[in-house]
Amino acid sequence: TAPLTVIAGPCQLESYDHAAMIARTMSEICAEHGATYVFKASFDKANRTSLSGQRGVGMDAGLRILSDIRSEFGCPVLTDIHTADQCAPAAEAVDILQIPAFLCRQTDLLLAAGETGAVINIKKGQFLAPWDMANVVSKIESTGNKRILLTERGSSFGYNTLVTDMRALPQMAATGYPVVMDATHSVQQPGGLGGASGGQREFAPVMARAAVAVGVAAVFIETHEAPDTAPSDGPNMIPLNEMRNLVDILMRFDTLAKAHPLPALQ
Amino acid sequence: TAPLTVIAGPCQLESYDHAAMIARTMSEICAEHGATYVFKASFDKANRTSLSGQRGVGMDAGLRILSDIRSEFGCPVLTDIHTADQCAPAAEAVDILQIPAFLCRQTDLLLAAGETGAVINIKKGQFLAPWDMANVVSKIESTGNKRILLTERGSSFGYNTLVTDMRALPQMAATGYPVVMDATHSVQQPGGLGGASGGQREFAPVMARAAVAVGVAAVFIETHEAPDTAPSDGPNMIPLNEMRNLVDILMRFDTLAKAHPLPALQ
Amino acid sequence: TAPLTVIAGPCQLESYDHAAMIARTMSEICAEHGATYVFKASFDKANRTSLSGQRGVGMDAGLRILSDIRSEFGCPVLTDIHTADQCAPAAEAVDILQIPAFLCRQTDLLLAAGETGAVINIKKGQFLAPWDMANVVSKIESTGNKRILLTERGSSFGYNTLVTDMRALPQMAATGYPVVMDATHSVQQPGGLGGASGGQREFAPVMARAAVAVGVAAVFIETHEAPDTAPSDGPNMIPLNEMRNLVDILMRFDTLAKAHPLPALQ
Amino acid sequence: TAPLTVIAGPCQLESYDHAAMIARTMSEICAEHGATYVFKASFDKANRTSLSGQRGVGMDAGLRILSDIRSEFGCPVLTDIHTADQCAPAAEAVDILQIPAFLCRQTDLLLAAGETGAVINIKKGQFLAPWDMANVVSKIESTGNKRILLTERGSSFGYNTLVTDMRALPQMAATGYPVVMDATHSVQQPGGLGGASGGQREFAPVMARAAVAVGVAAVFIETHEAPDTAPSDGPNMIPLNEMRNLVDILMRFDTLAKAHPLPALQ
Repeated sequence: TAPLTVIAGPCQLESYDHAAMIARTMSEICAEHGATYVFKASFDKANRTSLSGQRGVGMDAGLRILSDIRSEFGCPVLTDIHTADQCAPAAEAVDILQIPAFLCRQTDLLLAAGETGAVINIKKGQFLAPWDMANVVSKIESTGNKRILLTERGSSFGYNTLVTDMRALPQMAATGYPVVMDATHSVQQPGGLGGASGGQREFAPVMARAAVAVGVAAVFIETHEAPDTAPSDGPNMIPLNEMRNLVDILMRFDTLAKAHPLPALQ
Repeated sequence: TAPLTVIAGPCQLESYDHAAMIARTMSEICAEHGATYVFKASFDKANRTSLSGQRGVGMDAGLRILSDIRSEFGCPVLTDIHTADQCAPAAEAVDILQIPAFLCRQTDLLLAAGETGAVINIKKGQFLAPWDMANVVSKIESTGNKRILLTERGSSFGYNTLVTDMRALPQMAATGYPVVMDATHSVQQPGGLGGASGGQREFAPVMARAAVAVGVAAVFIETHEAPDTAPSDGPNMIPLNEMRNLVDILMRFDTLAKAHPLPALQ
Repeated sequence: TAPLTVIAGPCQLESYDHAAMIARTMSEICAEHGATYVFKASFDKANRTSLSGQRGVGMDAGLRILSDIRSEFGCPVLTDIHTADQCAPAAEAVDILQIPAFLCRQTDLLLAAGETGAVINIKKGQFLAPWDMANVVSKIESTGNKRILLTERGSSFGYNTLVTDMRALPQMAATGYPVVMDATHSVQQPGGLGGASGGQREFAPVMARAAVAVGVAAVFIETHEAPDTAPSDGPNMIPLNEMRNLVDILMRFDTLAKAHPLPALQ
Repeated sequence: TAPLTVIAGPCQLESYDHAAMIARTMSEICAEHGATYVFKASFDKANRTSLSGQRGVGMDAGLRILSDIRSEFGCPVLTDIHTADQCAPAAEAVDILQIPAFLCRQTDLLLAAGETGAVINIKKGQFLAPWDMANVVSKIESTGNKRILLTERGSSFGYNTLVTDMRALPQMAATGYPVVMDATHSVQQPGGLGGASGGQREFAPVMARAAVAVGVAAVFIETHEAPDTAPSDGPNMIPLNEMRNLVDILMRFDTLAKAHPLPALQ
């Protein structure tokens, strides 16, 4: 099994220069430590807690930036799509289309995404059991596309709180597809700030280490040079200057975990 | 405060004749017992658990049926929409546009729905706290539309299970908008049958009675003459021949509850 | 089926005079409205959130007060016990022994309580499914004692929060034993104040009305003339001067619910 | 920080010979891999799901066996106590008194345990937030005893299911006391078999690896040579012949985790 992939970037695209700064930093860090790097950013935040939350640069400008990042840094690029008609244009610009957690059961979106032939990363809904993802996977597979990733990002646990069930990682892996741990959204506190989501950034490395020890194909980590002033998800993003150390440690755990894999579930 | 409104109909549209049979029966029952009747049916089930689940008659045929039901029976009609571009045509055919629970934070859908000027019924996401609905309401209000209904339909509670928190009813009522109890979806067992959702039909009257005693503007109840062979949500729909008795009892509780209302939350 | 029983009193015994004042007031209110009245108070709070919480008057003084209340007002009296050796002396002084929720699986306590022959009220643990209570009931029944009550008081729902699942009422009733709704503990926020439990007193009538509409044998309500200065559970107790109105309304719902009972679960 | 401690043994004591066989095997395994070994077994299962569940050899016989194990193998011994009067005799025979999760807020039990001066291992209740353990710790500290361990064993998550929140490990560590991961009880399915608890043995190594990667002082693992015929907790115990491999891997993760500790919470 391949070493850990690190999917990282800012929650939302701010500008080409900003994206490039983060892509450059993360590419270097990942190259140093033997991780595969995937750049991640959103061109639109379509489900902000409240209307006043910034939505981003929009699809046309966003896809241009993402395509340029891909050319410039030679790394695969991931972005999330929200409607069926965004899938085809997004698949021109990026390598991996991501299905947001709230939308993971919207059949038309899944089919449109699958039909592009791009890799599809499906975030498990906060309202879904891990084994329910088998049904979601089948929707994508029905398009003939079997390039699928499944991402854990926490389950509803009372109000304004998520909990991450580590059993979900091997349970989703039983589909046969690679599993990703989203270490920063799993520590969100949805709606926790009233008009915005809160977060517990300090626990993102906890989730990442635990998941890598259990064994995952990739970690997903949102990062920003100044999270507290970022336009979204600041409370749970990891400061960019902490990423080198985090990737270093995660790669050590990954090497150990992959040398001693847990048996697959039947 | 007005007597209870009963929003009822089949989970999905099957044909004009089927819809008319249910609308006729429910209109009569509601007229007998002093309830306002709203016909409900979906033209598309856009988020079935698995791909093999039937999706329905489609938008064009569906809206035609719904519009005909409205003309024929003179009752308001409710249907759910799934994408922004469905909002305007649906608002031509029906009176109330419903935002599905999984989509209750999708800003573009909320804005498109609000802009039609139709009444908007927002189902509270299974992943949302009752007080988070204030942010959802603001998105609709930003369009100038203040014809809003808020529906309780259960919260995630472990895996494949929902729980209905009766506190959510007065908490959502604190927004100033009418609150609806969805008695049949709140007893769903999402994904509980593996490739489909299970349900506990026997508890739908429990939820309805409890909510009406607390005080709600409306109950939402899916019904079918033969739930066990219905194309969707059979396990939680109430048999049509039990609706007369149920509406009778709910109206008695409603009269009592509205004569002795609970104090509004501050 | 008999009209509603109201189990009410202060969370903890403070003095004979205090207990008598509440017993007198509640006896009058219940007599006026046709409810059976049971006096409730604890002689020891054995599981306070923190050590600094007041524990009460102790067993000897407490049982004397409870016995005097029983003689003076002629009403059945309920108190909770925490160890096997408290059962026999408590059963001399009171009519109903209550098993605290945290202790509802402690076999020796259940057996000792059952062996007294007193009525046993078992609070469902916050960590237990309603159907798990059948196992708890069997432990009591093994002593030959079939005078059992089962009480709903909320289930763990994330951290520091409880949720009351109205389905639990008919599910527990399927054991054949009377079901009690604890309207004030079900709105506790365990540990919610750091060193003490918080509570949402304003929702206690919501829980009571909902449960009575579903159909219960009794409601359990802690009350105090000045909840905010009470030694324990102040945040969720109902002010004594609101009880007349609450009992009045609950009896109206009870009459209606019992005239139209929900079918028993199979 | 010291290398990982492994607390392991059968769920309940069966006989001296059985206990000795497990203690011998586990002592050897731990010695080989540099782990400190603590023998664990219960002399009484005081809160079985149902009355027909076997309770064990009783206190007198049990403490004799435990004391003999301690002499014979020179390892510290842990057992759980259920009433205040068991604390003193148990503290003569063993090194660590364990407070069961359901009883973690029973003040008298905590004080009696603390007063023995033994090490006290408190299991976090399934109904408690991690930060609520600070109040529990204070009760023990009030006796002057500061030899405390805190154990994670899962939180209620819907019905008949637990979930382990990895954030709880650093949150409990913020008390300053060592944290233990109970890898086998955290995969229990309470009441999941109707008259007994179910379990998901296959996930115990998942929990153990994840927790050790986050950083814990000890893991707690119940083990048996034939779990499927063990008198209790069979579904979640790990077969004894898998323990060598598990301890080997956990020690590798522990070495890595302790070389790169997560920053302590503020």
